[in-house]
Amino acid sequence: MALIVQKYGGTSVGSPERIQAVAERVERWHQQGHDIVVVVSAMSGETNRLLALAKAITDEPDPRELDQMVSTGEQVTIALLAMALQKRGLGAKSMTGAQVAIRTDSAFTKARIEAIDDTAMRAELAKRNVIIVAGFQGIDAQGNITTLGRGGSDTTGVALAAALKADECQIYTDVDGVYTTDPRVVPQARRLDKITFEEMLEMASLGSKVLQIRSVEFAGKYQVPLRVLSSFGEGEGTLITTDSEEAMEQPVISGIAFNRDEAKLTIRGVPDTPGIAYRILGPIGNANIEIDMIVQNISADNTTDFTFTVHRNEFRKALPILENIAKEIGAREVVGDDKIAKVSLVGVGMRSHAGVASQMFGTLAKENINIQMISTSEIKISVVVEEKYMELAVRALHTAFGLDAPSV
Amino acid sequence: MALIVQKYGGTSVGSPERIQAVAERVERWHQQGHDIVVVVSAMSGETNRLLALAKAITDEPDPRELDQMVSTGEQVTIALLAMALQKRGLGAKSMTGAQVAIRTDSAFTKARIEAIDDTAMRAELAKRNVIIVAGFQGIDAQGNITTLGRGGSDTTGVALAAALKADECQIYTDVDGVYTTDPRVVPQARRLDKITFEEMLEMASLGSKVLQIRSVEFAGKYQVPLRVLSSFGEGEGTLITTDSEEAMEQPVISGIAFNRDEAKLTIRGVPDTPGIAYRILGPIGNANIEIDMIVQNISADNTTDFTFTVHRNEFRKALPILENIAKEIGAREVVGDDKIAKVSLVGVGMRSHAGVASQMFGTLAKENINIQMISTSEIKISVVVEEKYMELAVRALHTAFGLDAPSV
Repeated sequence: MALIVQKYGGTSVGSPERIQAVAERVERWHQQGHDIVVVVSAMSGETNRLLALAKAITDEPDPRELDQMVSTGEQVTIALLAMALQKRGLGAKSMTGAQVAIRTDSAFTKARIEAIDDTAMRAELAKRNVIIVAGFQGIDAQGNITTLGRGGSDTTGVALAAALKADECQIYTDVDGVYTTDPRVVPQARRLDKITFEEMLEMASLGSKVLQIRSVEFAGKYQVPLRVLSSFGEGEGTLITTDSEEAMEQPVISGIAFNRDEAKLTIRGVPDTPGIAYRILGPIGNANIEIDMIVQNISADNTTDFTFTVHRNEFRKALPILENIAKEIGAREVVGDDKIAKVSLVGVGMRSHAGVASQMFGTLAKENINIQMISTSEIKISVVVEEKYMELAVRALHTAFGLDAPSV
Repeated sequence: MALIVQKYGGTSVGSPERIQAVAERVERWHQQGHDIVVVVSAMSGETNRLLALAKAITDEPDPRELDQMVSTGEQVTIALLAMALQKRGLGAKSMTGAQVAIRTDSAFTKARIEAIDDTAMRAELAKRNVIIVAGFQGIDAQGNITTLGRGGSDTTGVALAAALKADECQIYTDVDGVYTTDPRVVPQARRLDKITFEEMLEMASLGSKVLQIRSVEFAGKYQVPLRVLSSFGEGEGTLITTDSEEAMEQPVISGIAFNRDEAKLTIRGVPDTPGIAYRILGPIGNANIEIDMIVQNISADNTTDFTFTVHRNEFRKALPILENIAKEIGAREVVGDDKIAKVSLVGVGMRSHAGVASQMFGTLAKENINIQMISTSEIKISVVVEEKYMELAVRALHTAFGLDAPSV
């Protein structure tokens, strides 16, 4: 007998039939004797429908009123799921963020949870009722309805699990777990039984969009065991834990992340003087352009080349800024390339294993893939390569690091 | 400078364009210096969309969950209207029933308002903000969301006007006021400038569905001046008041109501003994069938005929019950007729004018319309006639009592 928080996203509750299927799944867990708190999103498409209504009224809707409006999407789903559970004979009660109460700050459309009162939920659990909580929403000190930003239902699930000291927070999605890499690129990709929070964060931020990164941070901070699993099929999914002893026995590499969201900018022939990095990157930051990787080589003949990556959407915006800077500081030229891809090996195992980097570079060399940039952290090595080599690089590394599923 | 509560129904806020039009109207009133509280319904079609979702889940949805769900319809509208007002540069703030707080009992789907806290609203009005309140909903002592039943937004409007001691409660509809009778039946029907609460109640209960009857009762009880007017055009509409002095100068008859919602049941040859009415109507009442008119003639040869009307939908249900009763009490036979119509003259003026009834009966006789039942009250005379004569009866009476608009 455990206390389990389950979160179902918009696709999982996208129609009355899907909601009935969720009810059936919840009933199975409840019948095993577990106490269940369910967090649901709005039915898929509903939030966009509401935003389109607001857009038809004004281009700049007031954030408070926007939250007042979009929070209704989840409120509808919780009531429908409660009805579906009651129809199966279960005691069930829906609760809005306000009814729980999930107290947030007043940063409308991107509020942060400050406190959760578990009194009302405990009372319902004591009656063996299933509680269905509206994800993504809360209430501020003045009684205004707030939302946590898109995808915030994951955060609600983790926060409730933390507040209730739940045994597990299960995030039901349309995939059956976290994979070693994207199966659409590498058919041999394997589902991971376990992954650490740190690895998950690296994987998520690099484009494996299984979980909202904020909810993973939250779960790590409050040590809530998090499990990603499919709302359509069966299976154990992937457990995300702090379990670092076991990590020792894991393979060196847990997964390979990749994306083609970035573009590369190089300023050549920069006079190698102190403070030059700040003079280059300051104006970029002031333009609200986020920078990911930065590489600066050691200087030759008192000049150096300085390269960094930005989001591909900001490439056209960053280029003229950098050209201005080049003139100011007397650099030789600016070159840019938005046909690049980033490929990253992720794994807590590499902390204690030397040679991961050289094996990675060797594997890429064998495929004649030129490495344009390299960046490393404790549990990650990222390289930038020409975009057309991305799939080849991922597949080659997946095999080289023993991640391929055994062929049947 | 007055404090005005305005209520807009589902059709008036049925699209973003309509909501913009409401915002424009509210702005005009606000610019005249008035303080404005707006009550809105869900966008037309929205409540039915939500009910269909619930129906797809279960045939017997839990009333609490139903209220949790359908209350979102109004919550969307208040936010959209607030955005539309803000776009015009007005200060505006939307409030749910819970945020106001409109406290109700816990009779889900048909809750009654117990108390309204005007603190939050007063604070916003003091800032010259327009307040937009979700109609039809409230919150019970346990924090559950309740609804007042369909059409309950009128009640919300009147209740807020009473709580705030507003100068007027304006109900915007798709008609431009209360008419002497239905203009679809009598093209010469006239809009009334004024009508008393009592007359309005008689008109409403008889099928002139301009206002929810409960909101009229409420307005009468708390002496809230109520005005019905069009949300699409201009004009003064119809003011509903307690102003009984002026009523003396009104015409004898204010309007003619009619409906074909009823069916007639007669039990013949009933032994004329004390308590017989109870023995007949008790089982009908126990079956939750509501009775409207009742007529019992004086007895001849110690038996009497007993006739009453029920809603036409309940005719098939009432008939076998009455046949059982007939056997038990030894009555001769039961006959029924669901092809009837009720036509009523309404007017506080008839209190002080004799001869209204005879003029009514004479008018119908001249048209060869047979009267099947008669029932009277202080300000109303109703007759039941064969259904096919209904329009003819209404038109003849409308002319006879001087209600026709002067021809152009």
